[in-house]
Amino acid sequence: MQTKEYPIAILTGIALIGASVALFRTQPVVAQTQGSAAVFTPDGKLELPKGFRRWVFVGAPLTPNGLNNGEAGFPEFHHVYIQAQNVDAHLKTGQFPEGTVIVKELTRVLNPTFPDGSRNEPSGRGFFNGEFNGIDATVKQSKRFAKTNGWGFFTFGHHPLPYEQTAAESPATVCANCHMANVAKTDMTWVQFYPLLRGK
Amino acid sequence: MQTKEYPIAILTGIALIGASVALFRTQPVVAQTQGSAAVFTPDGKLELPKGFRRWVFVGAPLTPNGLNNGEAGFPEFHHVYIQAQNVDAHLKTGQFPEGTVIVKELTRVLNPTFPDGSRNEPSGRGFFNGEFNGIDATVKQSKRFAKTNGWGFFTFGHHPLPYEQTAAESPATVCANCHMANVAKTDMTWVQFYPLLRGK
Repeated sequence: MQTKEYPIAILTGIALIGASVALFRTQPVVAQTQGSAAVFTPDGKLELPKGFRRWVFVGAPLTPNGLNNGEAGFPEFHHVYIQAQNVDAHLKTGQFPEGTVIVKELTRVLNPTFPDGSRNEPSGRGFFNGEFNGIDATVKQSKRFAKTNGWGFFTFGHHPLPYEQTAAESPATVCANCHMANVAKTDMTWVQFYPLLRGK
Repeated sequence: MQTKEYPIAILTGIALIGASVALFRTQPVVAQTQGSAAVFTPDGKLELPKGFRRWVFVGAPLTPNGLNNGEAGFPEFHHVYIQAQNVDAHLKTGQFPEGTVIVKELTRVLNPTFPDGSRNEPSGRGFFNGEFNGIDATVKQSKRFAKTNGWGFFTFGHHPLPYEQTAAESPATVCANCHMANVAKTDMTWVQFYPLLRGK
């Protein structure tokens, strides 16, 4: 009997290995929500999202220092990126799915020559994208971030490259409070500044 | 003999249909360069590129009317998109592959309240993305557009949605001459304004 059972055991083992490989290929090991780009370290820090510059760009608000008495909170272009499946869901439902990550990458205005931060180029006087200068990210996990209306906010540095690789959740006073005060009704997101999400 | 040959003929026919379907699924019918997003009509007009808002965003220069005596050529944000494989090629070689399409979508500045085109929002005084307002595209086909340094330029309208569905090549005086005068050395593209292509 035993000599006949060995091949079956071997085949079963191979099948289990195959199934395991398939399982790991379709389920990221550390992600908290299926398909989410949010990956947390064991001590609860968010890892710097990967590949976000290939996500869908939705808008680039700009609040230059020169127009804010030199004290703009973010004097850079804000390049805002969202993964395609979450853009699609928002266009259908007006809400972002659980696990949605929104990344805001900052770029300085390119070498200003006027006090307002602008410079002259062949296309005219204006603002052009300078150096990368920081990353903020927000993650929708309604239970985890219940105190801040379902979204957690993270900062990976406000400076040139390289950025920090992990970030602890920012206190509500730094980011969430302003979102709660102004855009709680639009899923904590400034959709009024993003033509793609407004549909025009 | 005939009665036996019918099934073979039918099977052969089905196989040929299957092969034809496979062929048409992998080769776009009208595209001029393999893998290119540039599709031309029989009379040489470029079709409005599809899906470009899901391409890789590289920059958002802004030259508001308020800073250009009300006469900016493009008083909007210029959202510039390039397909991922062409961004990758440029990062490796410093050149764009044949068939590369670059799309510039314009968005107006959102409801200005200051003469320079800016307005106040919770993040400060600045410029925010308003309505979509036009599409320009450029296509690299060195032989087809040899007179304008290998790139053809097209405008699908400079106004709110909907855009034109096709565009004839613009005269060199409208677009190409300025690119040739200023950015001929960087493959006719303003890479100095695009942090991703500069690598910083």
